[in-house]
Amino acid sequence: MNDYTESVESIASAARVASVTMRKATTAQKNEALEAIAAALCENAAQIEEANAEDYERERAGGMSQGLLDRLFLDSERIADIAEAVRHVASLPDPIGDVIKGRTLDNGMRLTQVRVPIGVIGMIYEARPNVTVDAASLALKAGSAAILRGGSAAARTNSVLVDIMRTAIASCGLPSDAISSIDSFGREGAVALMRARGLVDLVIPRGGAGLIRTVVEQSLVPVIETGVGNCHVYVDSSADLDKAHAITINSKTQRVGVCNAAETLLVHGDVAEDFLPGALSSLSEAGVVLHADERTRELAPEGVEIVDATEDDWEREYLALEMAVRVVPDLDSALEHIRTYSTGHTEAIVAQDCDAIEEFVNGLDCAAVMVNASTRFTDGGQFGLGAEIGISTQKLHARGPMGLDEITTTMWIARGDGHIRS
Amino acid sequence: MNDYTESVESIASAARVASVTMRKATTAQKNEALEAIAAALCENAAQIEEANAEDYERERAGGMSQGLLDRLFLDSERIADIAEAVRHVASLPDPIGDVIKGRTLDNGMRLTQVRVPIGVIGMIYEARPNVTVDAASLALKAGSAAILRGGSAAARTNSVLVDIMRTAIASCGLPSDAISSIDSFGREGAVALMRARGLVDLVIPRGGAGLIRTVVEQSLVPVIETGVGNCHVYVDSSADLDKAHAITINSKTQRVGVCNAAETLLVHGDVAEDFLPGALSSLSEAGVVLHADERTRELAPEGVEIVDATEDDWEREYLALEMAVRVVPDLDSALEHIRTYSTGHTEAIVAQDCDAIEEFVNGLDCAAVMVNASTRFTDGGQFGLGAEIGISTQKLHARGPMGLDEITTTMWIARGDGHIRS
Repeated sequence: MNDYTESVESIASAARVASVTMRKATTAQKNEALEAIAAALCENAAQIEEANAEDYERERAGGMSQGLLDRLFLDSERIADIAEAVRHVASLPDPIGDVIKGRTLDNGMRLTQVRVPIGVIGMIYEARPNVTVDAASLALKAGSAAILRGGSAAARTNSVLVDIMRTAIASCGLPSDAISSIDSFGREGAVALMRARGLVDLVIPRGGAGLIRTVVEQSLVPVIETGVGNCHVYVDSSADLDKAHAITINSKTQRVGVCNAAETLLVHGDVAEDFLPGALSSLSEAGVVLHADERTRELAPEGVEIVDATEDDWEREYLALEMAVRVVPDLDSALEHIRTYSTGHTEAIVAQDCDAIEEFVNGLDCAAVMVNASTRFTDGGQFGLGAEIGISTQKLHARGPMGLDEITTTMWIARGDGHIRS
Repeated sequence: MNDYTESVESIASAARVASVTMRKATTAQKNEALEAIAAALCENAAQIEEANAEDYERERAGGMSQGLLDRLFLDSERIADIAEAVRHVASLPDPIGDVIKGRTLDNGMRLTQVRVPIGVIGMIYEARPNVTVDAASLALKAGSAAILRGGSAAARTNSVLVDIMRTAIASCGLPSDAISSIDSFGREGAVALMRARGLVDLVIPRGGAGLIRTVVEQSLVPVIETGVGNCHVYVDSSADLDKAHAITINSKTQRVGVCNAAETLLVHGDVAEDFLPGALSSLSEAGVVLHADERTRELAPEGVEIVDATEDDWEREYLALEMAVRVVPDLDSALEHIRTYSTGHTEAIVAQDCDAIEEFVNGLDCAAVMVNASTRFTDGGQFGLGAEIGISTQKLHARGPMGLDEITTTMWIARGDGHIRS
């Protein structure tokens, strides 16, 4: 145990104590605190911008890529957006206290299963200051304390944001230790957080595949993995090819770099000749680099460039304007391909034949199946969950888009009248 | 990677393939297979008894304790009971296909969240042959494949049981690889199972605290912890003392060695004088060794022996006729004691005052709270879940008694008509 471990454990212990108060906070108290955070962020925008400018300049000078710099950057407009997102969390229904199940037992005891706060939630993420506020406000609404570990590149900004939030919730009578940061302890601090079993109830990694893998492998605290998505679109022989065209283009290009974008297109051999030339042209026009098998290459119109697909292409989550394309002899082969390479996020089928649709839906094991719809719909907002902490691709606890419910747990309450077991 | 790892991975791969078929098995097929298992167990009782006699004799000669030998032992009556439990699983509602949530989105897409099989479940348990059949049949009913790792002391028995079950399900057209054993690979095999991320979806350890800790620390596959229970009974100043007496005795002595038995009694100072002498006498008469604080000792009637309680007593899950007893000045102190020492299983309050009850219920963080009822009610059968795989004391995925639902996962299915995101 080094000094950092001790420091993180002491922060986690304080968060644990704060979580006992948070557990009993009413919806009104929590919403008031969220409104106070939103107001304080706007009032202190100048201070936030100043800290952010320091982070930004240091990282820019250090050679951070433009994409990452953009995620790091805050101005008064973006700060107002972050504050608005906090107000949105305040407007969501409070999940705590929901009765999930209930019955009166034969012996007269009244049994209910009630949604309760999970306790202390650790968030490990990359250099995106908006996540700092987002994660803290969702945890607060869900009645839990949050311990935040953002990327070191945003450390100055996060430190100011956390201070502002702590002061804001304290002004509403909630414990400031319900929001804390361990950024100053670096990677060792993150490891200590993952090992703080008994003090921390849940760790959510949010970021790239590497970060997620590290957390899953090192954590002793239960983890909810979020979203690596190697999503497929399968065009069946029974497909309406106009719909198939629109869904393919939308799934790949409507937004790039998101986990619910499609990465591979599978086409039934019977419709490949009718479907692929047009689809490949449109994808190519949209700037998509195509990695394909031989049959696809044969069907590519003049001028559409095709790169030979390798095993690696079937496996990759491009998160870019690239797509793997393969012609399959039948639905079974499509299912077999998906089963082999899927990350269990979202798979789409375009088909009119109901048997084919049922076979696809029942033959796969993933967070979401889209029938005649774009893979891009797998999203907390689209699904009506209100807020989204991430998209879980694991099978335990939460699968698919995670809202407030997914960062809570449950408790059984049995009320008797002197009941004993015979 | 050693040979055992390779062998376990090849068994897990076969289970994974089998799970694809299991996923699509109808309720009728699964029930038929369960009936076939039950029948085969009875028909082959002699063979099972023979294998069991080998295990039993070897372990008896090796000095296994009487308690463990009793758990290991099978005769034709016990085999018939095991078969009957399998038929009971067949009689339970099939959880697969349940629609949990659903709505039509604003854009007309129809969204449902459906219960689906989890895939491949690993069970790691101690030398209790009944768990072999129990775990396999629950996994089968939940549409998953099971990989079993029982204690080496029951290896011969388990091997025969697994062979019988594999033959039985194959005779019904289900894949025999849906049930397999890795007993022959010893501890290294168990470790390989816990590391088989991607092939195994869930590991459930069932056994003592040591086994559970090992699995939690070593597993890369998600784990559901089952039941270590340091359960408390708190007698409030507002308690009906007759009910408090009955609940205390029942919680401690109705069955010993189970996780939902009470281990510590906390008594409000205002009623200690009225309540404790009688309660201590009854506990002592029932053979309970009492570890108590000084105030309790002062109130103990003549002839009731009290051992001084140490810090260790507040922490221990005795699983025996022993109980820790403490007088607390108020409800807050009781809550503080429980928060410090609880394992988050079951806590009971005996009280008539509704404010005290609400404060207790809202102030604790555990799988179950009993209000004026014995801790012994936290049980899948008592709660009406039909079957019980174990009692989860973790907060993710399942909390409290786990039935069939708790070894499944969910999938979102969205049905559109060419829907794309704009």
